[in-house]
Amino acid sequence: MDIYKKLEELKLEIPAPPPRGGIYQPVKQVGNLLYVSGQGPTVDGVPVITGKLGSERSLEEGQEAVRMCVMNALSSLEVYLGNLNKIKSVVKLLAFVASASGFNAQPQVVNGASQLLVDLWGEEQGMGARSAIGVNELPGNMSVEIELLVEI
Amino acid sequence: MDIYKKLEELKLEIPAPPPRGGIYQPVKQVGNLLYVSGQGPTVDGVPVITGKLGSERSLEEGQEAVRMCVMNALSSLEVYLGNLNKIKSVVKLLAFVASASGFNAQPQVVNGASQLLVDLWGEEQGMGARSAIGVNELPGNMSVEIELLVEI
Amino acid sequence: MDIYKKLEELKLEIPAPPPRGGIYQPVKQVGNLLYVSGQGPTVDGVPVITGKLGSERSLEEGQEAVRMCVMNALSSLEVYLGNLNKIKSVVKLLAFVASASGFNAQPQVVNGASQLLVDLWGEEQGMGARSAIGVNELPGNMSVEIELLVEI
Repeated sequence: MDIYKKLEELKLEIPAPPPRGGIYQPVKQVGNLLYVSGQGPTVDGVPVITGKLGSERSLEEGQEAVRMCVMNALSSLEVYLGNLNKIKSVVKLLAFVASASGFNAQPQVVNGASQLLVDLWGEEQGMGARSAIGVNELPGNMSVEIELLVEI
Repeated sequence: MDIYKKLEELKLEIPAPPPRGGIYQPVKQVGNLLYVSGQGPTVDGVPVITGKLGSERSLEEGQEAVRMCVMNALSSLEVYLGNLNKIKSVVKLLAFVASASGFNAQPQVVNGASQLLVDLWGEEQGMGARSAIGVNELPGNMSVEIELLVEI
Repeated sequence: MDIYKKLEELKLEIPAPPPRGGIYQPVKQVGNLLYVSGQGPTVDGVPVITGKLGSERSLEEGQEAVRMCVMNALSSLEVYLGNLNKIKSVVKLLAFVASASGFNAQPQVVNGASQLLVDLWGEEQGMGARSAIGVNELPGNMSVEIELLVEI
């Protein structure tokens, strides 16, 4: 399986790597694990999907936002690895959804990210463990933030 | 030590494994680590302890809720491992508590989960690292959500 | 590089280890990874920087709070390891910032912690992956809580 062919089939392009939004490494390796720093729905580091689910943003916009997080994570991983085909599997996804009071469909939002990873790597390799959490505020008023752990 | 004897002594029964609430694996293994997806106080996937600590739910109800999370995690681990005696130790517990404004007793709530793990595996093996965090909203209006990392 | 010389240069003293605030291990080791339990801006276990960023606390107070979290983490690590020079690198930092409605400068707050780790261990070793998240409430009304993962 060539992940770049998959991206082409899905008509997806790896975006430019997001500039650092603070003092951290985009990707940190320990053994065969790669910890990816929290990713947002940004373009060139600027949040483009902002505001809370349940009031300012629809479920569909939330799903688009988490897909952008995944694409930014892949961009950071490509810079680090040189080639995304080195990724063996998705280990874990920790997703935070900026949630208005009474919004409880965080898993449905985060499914947008999980489905994309499964579309790219298949169920066996693309589907890791996951937690979906609601929070009141995220950096830059982003609608979602995702932390990814992958295995090479 | 036989974990099933311990469960019997404590009059605890492993519940039916919670059905997936999204696109993820209940348990994902890397090396000797098992990442367990976020668990809630659910029965057959339906949240049964909902609402915020500090307004809608008491500390005791919160502690019961986190115990349910642990039992659901054990159910998922049993499906994955076949036998819970394969678990060597609890590495880490990340707990999110749906908190009304001004509620700050998250650690006391989460102690319900930690005590159960210690009752089952003892201090040496059952007590891992831990963080307890308050959040404004959780999936399905659950009162708590717990993410577990164990070592086999 | 001697981390204790660095601490002296920066006029920093490792505080007394924070007493446990619940049923958990301050540090849990698996292989060469050390998971450090959630740390707050406490002295002898008592929160000293409390209240939300964006209303009750300034950015500078938040940065001081996260530095205290790091120092408490180092204290727990020193108890566990005997000598902080055994730490090879900072793998990951997960930071939660108690945030008033509309506060979105979590990364700027958390930079206080990240900068301290870089001052101590340098960019190569002291800069790990990171996520900065806003939440509505934290234990004991602490302004921040930080979870650290280090490699020995």
